Amino acid sequence: MAVYTEISDEELDALLDQYDLGQALSCKGIAEGVENSNFLLHTDAGYYILTLYEKRVSKPDLPFFLGLMEHLATHGFISPTPITAADGETLKEVAGRPAAIIEFLDGRSVKRVYPQHCALLGETLAQLHTIGSNGFDLTRANTLSLSSWRSLFESCAASHHGELHPEVFSEIESEISYLESHWPKKLPSGVIHADLFPDNIFFLNDQVSGVIDYYFACNDFFAYDVAICLNAWCFESDDSFNITKARKLLIGYRGIRDISEEELNFLPLLCRGAAIRFLLTRLYDWLNQIEGALVKPKDPLEYFRKLQFHQAVKTVASYGLD
Amino acid sequence: MAVYTEISDEELDALLDQYDLGQALSCKGIAEGVENSNFLLHTDAGYYILTLYEKRVSKPDLPFFLGLMEHLATHGFISPTPITAADGETLKEVAGRPAAIIEFLDGRSVKRVYPQHCALLGETLAQLHTIGSNGFDLTRANTLSLSSWRSLFESCAASHHGELHPEVFSEIESEISYLESHWPKKLPSGVIHADLFPDNIFFLNDQVSGVIDYYFACNDFFAYDVAICLNAWCFESDDSFNITKARKLLIGYRGIRDISEEELNFLPLLCRGAAIRFLLTRLYDWLNQIEGALVKPKDPLEYFRKLQFHQAVKTVASYGLD
Repeated sequence: MAVYTEISDEELDALLDQYDLGQALSCKGIAEGVENSNFLLHTDAGYYILTLYEKRVSKPDLPFFLGLMEHLATHGFISPTPITAADGETLKEVAGRPAAIIEFLDGRSVKRVYPQHCALLGETLAQLHTIGSNGFDLTRANTLSLSSWRSLFESCAASHHGELHPEVFSEIESEISYLESHWPKKLPSGVIHADLFPDNIFFLNDQVSGVIDYYFACNDFFAYDVAICLNAWCFESDDSFNITKARKLLIGYRGIRDISEEELNFLPLLCRGAAIRFLLTRLYDWLNQIEGALVKPKDPLEYFRKLQFHQAVKTVASYGLD
Repeated sequence: MAVYTEISDEELDALLDQYDLGQALSCKGIAEGVENSNFLLHTDAGYYILTLYEKRVSKPDLPFFLGLMEHLATHGFISPTPITAADGETLKEVAGRPAAIIEFLDGRSVKRVYPQHCALLGETLAQLHTIGSNGFDLTRANTLSLSSWRSLFESCAASHHGELHPEVFSEIESEISYLESHWPKKLPSGVIHADLFPDNIFFLNDQVSGVIDYYFACNDFFAYDVAICLNAWCFESDDSFNITKARKLLIGYRGIRDISEEELNFLPLLCRGAAIRFLLTRLYDWLNQIEGALVKPKDPLEYFRKLQFHQAVKTVASYGLD
């Protein structure tokens, strides 16, 4: 949950003056998104999400994120559309922060994942990959992939004061070395979401009604995005891996976009990489938590246990594909 | 801001099955209210606020609060109406907590108070007093008035470890003694809001469009509610008292409900009492803050400085009335 910035009436009115949405009837901070401040905005024209980008989102990346959402929405993918102001722009400023007004999508994220959700997730992810990489020209490097992990690990080690068992630290370090020497050089690539956790998909009437939060989207291996989803959706709360969910996810995905033999062979390794990526950022947030902050850091060791599962995987059969 | 309880899809569906509002299309936690969990709920029938009552609200008081809102709304006051379920009840249960679905009101609370807001506040408060005390039969004692202050002070003293200057403590104690011996025995009474801070009034098109958050409402002196508002609305952020705002508030109020000579004479004392009430609850929350809690306690000393202003007031002329 996050509302970091308050907006004055004058600032909100000045923002809406730049759009063709009528006046603001109501504007309420909502407990959604961790990186930004989000408001549910009701205007004469309808309901919208107003997002203020806080400092963890890099301003030069915003045209990529907003452009991607617009591209996806205009090509039939269930992304919310950023609303265009009278001057043709989607990126504005409020309270000293970059801001955008974005379409409000109905639907609810699931608190409890069933196998059928994973099937729909697989289809949706493949649609995002296909549509997002067809005719969208902006690119953004994945700043949280392989090349960032060692320095992130070193920052964690520096701010560490005995909170974790030393063995955990040395295992993370040797895993990073392993990934550095085995990471694929080339696999089918394009735009990936890179953070497609259950929070970021809305369901309605047993269908996916929306995919939100594109603020980690970037260009990378498609199969790495699949690996992120296997980690985020297919483990139970006791850290056991649910192979039925994984199978549903992969079969759903393959129904829309083919996965090559090479991608499948790399999947266990990509899952290890995805586990390291979330382990490291969570560990960093956990070691550097601000006292009194509104956001409780998530348990980093959850991803250490996920990593250990993938380390024992030999082939994609462990993910439900024969 | 506060969202304390998460609601599962199954729980939300089970709740909506009891109403004639269609299905839930979306349900987002909102950063509103400190005592309860609030959600913006979109159903086939429209937009609503779903409130889950957390443990600081006493369950036996809920029929009073919800009944009052219903009474006010049906008698022309701009309170949101609790929605009646198919069985005729407004109070239900979700996730083990008492819950109600309440009408969504447009409008925005002001971050910056202008004198004209205080004029509208005065009229609105007098309307609430008049309508709330006419034909509404339930009653609720003010559990945060005079009789509670000494024990609240003693709890604060017990959990205090040198955070405040000892002189502040002894001044609070002697103020409580003074109030105990000078508090009026009898003044015009009825239903009061008791927490009408700027957060709890919505404005739209230069009119009041909604008064929310009745969870401190009770039966007490009308003039005590006026005193709470003078404290909450008429001080600037540097703790200076804005007599123009106070005058607007009192004249606005008097345009709807007459204030007797006796009430006016007691107003400085009631303002001291109102300052002590908020000083003590804030001090309590501040001394007992839970590490990692989502809500940042408000500065208790703000109300100590307000108290000092009222202690120096001799007559209601200091509040702008001659």
